[in-house]
Amino acid sequence: MPTTPAYAAPTAKAALGPFTVERREPRPQDVLIDIQYCGVCHSDIHQARDEWGGALFPMVPGHEIVGKVSQVGSAVTTFKVGDTVGVGCFVDSCRECPQCLNGDEQYCDRGSVNTYNGRDYDGQPTYGGYSTRITVDAKYVVRIPEGIPLDRAAPLLCAGITTYSPLRYYGVKPGSKLAVVGLGGLGHMGVKLAKAMGAEVTVLSTSPSKRDDALALGAAHFEATSDKATFKKLRRSFDFILDTVSAQHDYNAYLSLLKTDGTMIIVGAPEAPTPLAAFSLIPRRLKLGGSMIGGIRETQEMLDFCAQHQVAADVEVIPIQKINDAYERMLKNDVRYRFVIDTASLK
Amino acid sequence: MPTTPAYAAPTAKAALGPFTVERREPRPQDVLIDIQYCGVCHSDIHQARDEWGGALFPMVPGHEIVGKVSQVGSAVTTFKVGDTVGVGCFVDSCRECPQCLNGDEQYCDRGSVNTYNGRDYDGQPTYGGYSTRITVDAKYVVRIPEGIPLDRAAPLLCAGITTYSPLRYYGVKPGSKLAVVGLGGLGHMGVKLAKAMGAEVTVLSTSPSKRDDALALGAAHFEATSDKATFKKLRRSFDFILDTVSAQHDYNAYLSLLKTDGTMIIVGAPEAPTPLAAFSLIPRRLKLGGSMIGGIRETQEMLDFCAQHQVAADVEVIPIQKINDAYERMLKNDVRYRFVIDTASLK
Repeated sequence: MPTTPAYAAPTAKAALGPFTVERREPRPQDVLIDIQYCGVCHSDIHQARDEWGGALFPMVPGHEIVGKVSQVGSAVTTFKVGDTVGVGCFVDSCRECPQCLNGDEQYCDRGSVNTYNGRDYDGQPTYGGYSTRITVDAKYVVRIPEGIPLDRAAPLLCAGITTYSPLRYYGVKPGSKLAVVGLGGLGHMGVKLAKAMGAEVTVLSTSPSKRDDALALGAAHFEATSDKATFKKLRRSFDFILDTVSAQHDYNAYLSLLKTDGTMIIVGAPEAPTPLAAFSLIPRRLKLGGSMIGGIRETQEMLDFCAQHQVAADVEVIPIQKINDAYERMLKNDVRYRFVIDTASLK
Repeated sequence: MPTTPAYAAPTAKAALGPFTVERREPRPQDVLIDIQYCGVCHSDIHQARDEWGGALFPMVPGHEIVGKVSQVGSAVTTFKVGDTVGVGCFVDSCRECPQCLNGDEQYCDRGSVNTYNGRDYDGQPTYGGYSTRITVDAKYVVRIPEGIPLDRAAPLLCAGITTYSPLRYYGVKPGSKLAVVGLGGLGHMGVKLAKAMGAEVTVLSTSPSKRDDALALGAAHFEATSDKATFKKLRRSFDFILDTVSAQHDYNAYLSLLKTDGTMIIVGAPEAPTPLAAFSLIPRRLKLGGSMIGGIRETQEMLDFCAQHQVAADVEVIPIQKINDAYERMLKNDVRYRFVIDTASLK
């Protein structure tokens, strides 16, 4: 069986350190991928520290994976050795529920198989991209188009699709006035993607220091939400709000910024429930909607869109040995805008 | 000026009693209506007792008005004396904002003029349908089609359109699985209308005693939410939930009953904010959406739909002298399903 050096969290309380993973021998439908880069998602921290419960240890995080195909199973026709490919947040799903049949595998009724901190349908634990090789069913692998630097492509597999999918699903279009709340890993992709879709993007952030970055990323406007006057000034301004913030915040205040018939899209998940007033939704027929990553077909569409529009993540490439520092910096919002592990550092 | 006997709340703390209202002389665009019936909406109580703040006294409530045209202004071409007509929750709007131009006058940017407890754009207080006559701009008057008994038509002007509009807007269609939460004035219309649209309706109510009524109204199923097992049993069952409850309840529990991509429509408004977990929306791409009454064109469409499908409210007709008792009974949910005032009792 192929083995790979990796970094794992041995327990919820411990720092990540070296570990060895055995990958399964490619089955007829599988490809074996030599991982080159793996993005570091905020959810890696939540899971490595068991903040969402039910974590499986040892845990090798990482679900923003790019690399090259090094071996293909006998039945694989879609990829060949040497292809540049990506793997996102899940590596299998039931393939027969309404959502799977519709290409929305992320909402699989059986539950899709997480790329890490999950169990595949055989019961084996899954290990993610903080490693040098991974075996994945070709159906759950996407192609990285030419023109996107690989390190900057990795975060598209989670942060990219997590923002692209709801922008499409909820109907953002050229001329839409859209606010992105929070300028972190998700937010910075939301700005770039919405701009590329033709929306007029406003960044709303508690940090006035992010103004220049917001405008450089493609936002037309920046407003600091630390100033309460912002909420009066921007009342009824937006068709859409893309809310990427996972810290507690007041949904009602942001809903007041929507025009009649507007939609606030929730992709950040505060830990505790947030008080919602019915009167925030009723008098202007507002919607509050969730969204979670995206399906395989849509992930490929997003990657092709990014190549076409010259969109990629802003990243800071690190060796795996810096991962624990990187987590600490992420918790202080000290990253612009995604750490990406160069897995050459594992070899 | 035409005068009319009415019933008014003199202050927020006092019972309703006799009062006289002066109506304006019909202007060229106006019709004068002899009111025959007026439905009693739960919001009448909230406003007469100033529970929403800003109430104007003396207050003549009533925005579920039906009657006959007794006089038409010189420029009115759409109605003639003797026509059977209705007036709902508002009697004017700005007529030039995007929503007014789109027929969604209820979301008028300037603020539509409430039928009562409002001020018209001249600054005059408005008085509602607990009276025998009312002068209204013909643009804000709808036609009651033949075939709907007038007393049973009155509640359609608020309870009917409040449920019809979101069912249409959010896309309920033949075969949709829809739950109606709460079987009061709004809920009973929601059941009838959704059934007439071809949906498979389940009533969810805290009162097991409403089972027979629910089925008689057209629901295919009834489930008592007082039994916590109901939430497990019905997990991921519905495409839509129409939530008509204005008492505090747990949105997250009801959201768990939606299928992937489902929508919960809020038309009942609990006074205090309700805790909402982001994780209730994100993992299955659920939507929580508001809706408020409906526009004039859509109200006419709803009335025509009701006539075509033999839908009308279930009512208990009362003389105006019973209005204070009726309020008390409504607060105990002791009405099936709408009180309607016979304004002959005022004469």
